[in-house]
Amino acid sequence: MDIESLAEKVASGDRRSLSRAITLIESGRADHRKQAVALMERLATRPEAPQALRIGLSGTPGVGKSTFIEAFGMMLTGQGLRVAVLAVDPSSARSGGSILGDKTRMEQLSRDPNAFIRPSPSQTQLGGVARRSREAVALCEAAGFDVVLIETVGVGQSETMVSEMADLFLLLLAPAGGDELQGVKRGIMEMADMILINKADGDLKATATRTCADYAGALRLLRKRPQDPDGFPKAMTVSAVEHTGLEKAWEEMQALTDWRRTSGHFDGRRAEQARYWFREDVKNGLLARLDTSEARGDMARLAEAVAVGDMTATGAAQEMLSKIGG
Amino acid sequence: MDIESLAEKVASGDRRSLSRAITLIESGRADHRKQAVALMERLATRPEAPQALRIGLSGTPGVGKSTFIEAFGMMLTGQGLRVAVLAVDPSSARSGGSILGDKTRMEQLSRDPNAFIRPSPSQTQLGGVARRSREAVALCEAAGFDVVLIETVGVGQSETMVSEMADLFLLLLAPAGGDELQGVKRGIMEMADMILINKADGDLKATATRTCADYAGALRLLRKRPQDPDGFPKAMTVSAVEHTGLEKAWEEMQALTDWRRTSGHFDGRRAEQARYWFREDVKNGLLARLDTSEARGDMARLAEAVAVGDMTATGAAQEMLSKIGG
Repeated sequence: MDIESLAEKVASGDRRSLSRAITLIESGRADHRKQAVALMERLATRPEAPQALRIGLSGTPGVGKSTFIEAFGMMLTGQGLRVAVLAVDPSSARSGGSILGDKTRMEQLSRDPNAFIRPSPSQTQLGGVARRSREAVALCEAAGFDVVLIETVGVGQSETMVSEMADLFLLLLAPAGGDELQGVKRGIMEMADMILINKADGDLKATATRTCADYAGALRLLRKRPQDPDGFPKAMTVSAVEHTGLEKAWEEMQALTDWRRTSGHFDGRRAEQARYWFREDVKNGLLARLDTSEARGDMARLAEAVAVGDMTATGAAQEMLSKIGG
Repeated sequence: MDIESLAEKVASGDRRSLSRAITLIESGRADHRKQAVALMERLATRPEAPQALRIGLSGTPGVGKSTFIEAFGMMLTGQGLRVAVLAVDPSSARSGGSILGDKTRMEQLSRDPNAFIRPSPSQTQLGGVARRSREAVALCEAAGFDVVLIETVGVGQSETMVSEMADLFLLLLAPAGGDELQGVKRGIMEMADMILINKADGDLKATATRTCADYAGALRLLRKRPQDPDGFPKAMTVSAVEHTGLEKAWEEMQALTDWRRTSGHFDGRRAEQARYWFREDVKNGLLARLDTSEARGDMARLAEAVAVGDMTATGAAQEMLSKIGG
């Protein structure tokens, strides 16, 4: 594969080349990996590389996430913006499934020439999901998309992962009674820059307004973050079906982003994220040395020797470590 | 140091040699580590190595843990058993403090010739606390102690660590109103084989009985474990001050242990723990390669190159991994 020409086509915004590039970074083959690293370096070190707004979006099934992304994405493309949608689903690494298995969930957006939708990679190793997702985000950014939406499921670990690759983190919730407020983990609440209560329409409108007030109250109890202006994190109601509240939510996101850019927190956070991913990559790379078929065989054999008492865990670990070398 | 003679003295039950052996395994020096591994291998692979009952004990400050250990330990030595008490406190790795800083908290037990009390090692690295604690348990076992009590604080991570090195896990609680029941994390509840409500004496006796009933109810809601007979996990009241309920609790512990020995779950669990610690040791050993002063310097330099955008996280990680070798 000609990496130089692929990089140029990705940088020109060609969606088919972007797809090919993402397939390349998702590959587990060693020669593909080498090409992928070269591609990423080439794109990242261009002068004047474009910068997208990276928006993480989490929400449990049933809150209307696909409908929201379709409506929100169409609103953005309607304003002349180019929008990429990526899904990050670590659970699909085990199940082989995908939360964006096909594009039929976002029929309109998938036909929009200013939009790009990419399902979660399936059958990759858990540690690899993070790196591949992060590289896919960087590729979309290099391809000149203005907004990259990174969708994930509400299971905790994936939220942390996505918030470490996003500039903004949105939590999408459904209208609910007061008791159900407890269902959102405090850790996820603390990651959110904005909580959007979807389905604020029809019979659910009043409930949505109450739920929004409840969360606004809960957010006020959290420690204010130094990188945020007054009023953030913020709770708002939206209706993806009736297309209400979406422009308002987008304005708030832009206001928050502008504030962070001016204060230097935007760039500071990106630098911090880059350091974080570097350290994670090193750790995962080290642990991947246990993931060759030879190492797995040694591990299994030594673990059995330890289990039956022929060796101590410490002694067996030393033997294993000397085999791996370094 | 003559490792062969130290191993013999430890195996003969000499408490001073046991202390010296534990100091050796706690040392961070490379030559000490080598000797420690040799010592552990030597003791572990003896024919007819004795086996202790390893009891993990957790409880937040204020529940009367020291008083309980002193009373429970004295009861055991009164029955002719030899008892070792170890403390595991990962937080002391940071603070340099220790939850068993001196033996004055257990004045009687510390003077008992059939007891051995060892405070938590201080100023060790977090990952190292687990390995050192586990090796200290094995040394006490090799020294012929019948019961090894492993005390920890109620902070979650250390409970998991201790339950992975114990045959039985006890949770010690104080009498409390119904609202406070929520304070015990579900994960810690699920680890417990027995919950002991301490301070069932004087004014608190009635409250202790009610608290015990509450926890008994909560335990029944947990999934029954296949390795347990009916009635376990179990909640009981004790009074460390009045020495009541301790014999009963010990009888229940023995009954549970006998049941697990007969069913094979006792040995099965030990084998599973050995495999677990082997894998943990290998992982920690790999990650320790990042903990040399040279590696720390390389990491810092590359992290900065990534943060300012001169390198991608992926590329910098590859450079770092090739430096570490392997």
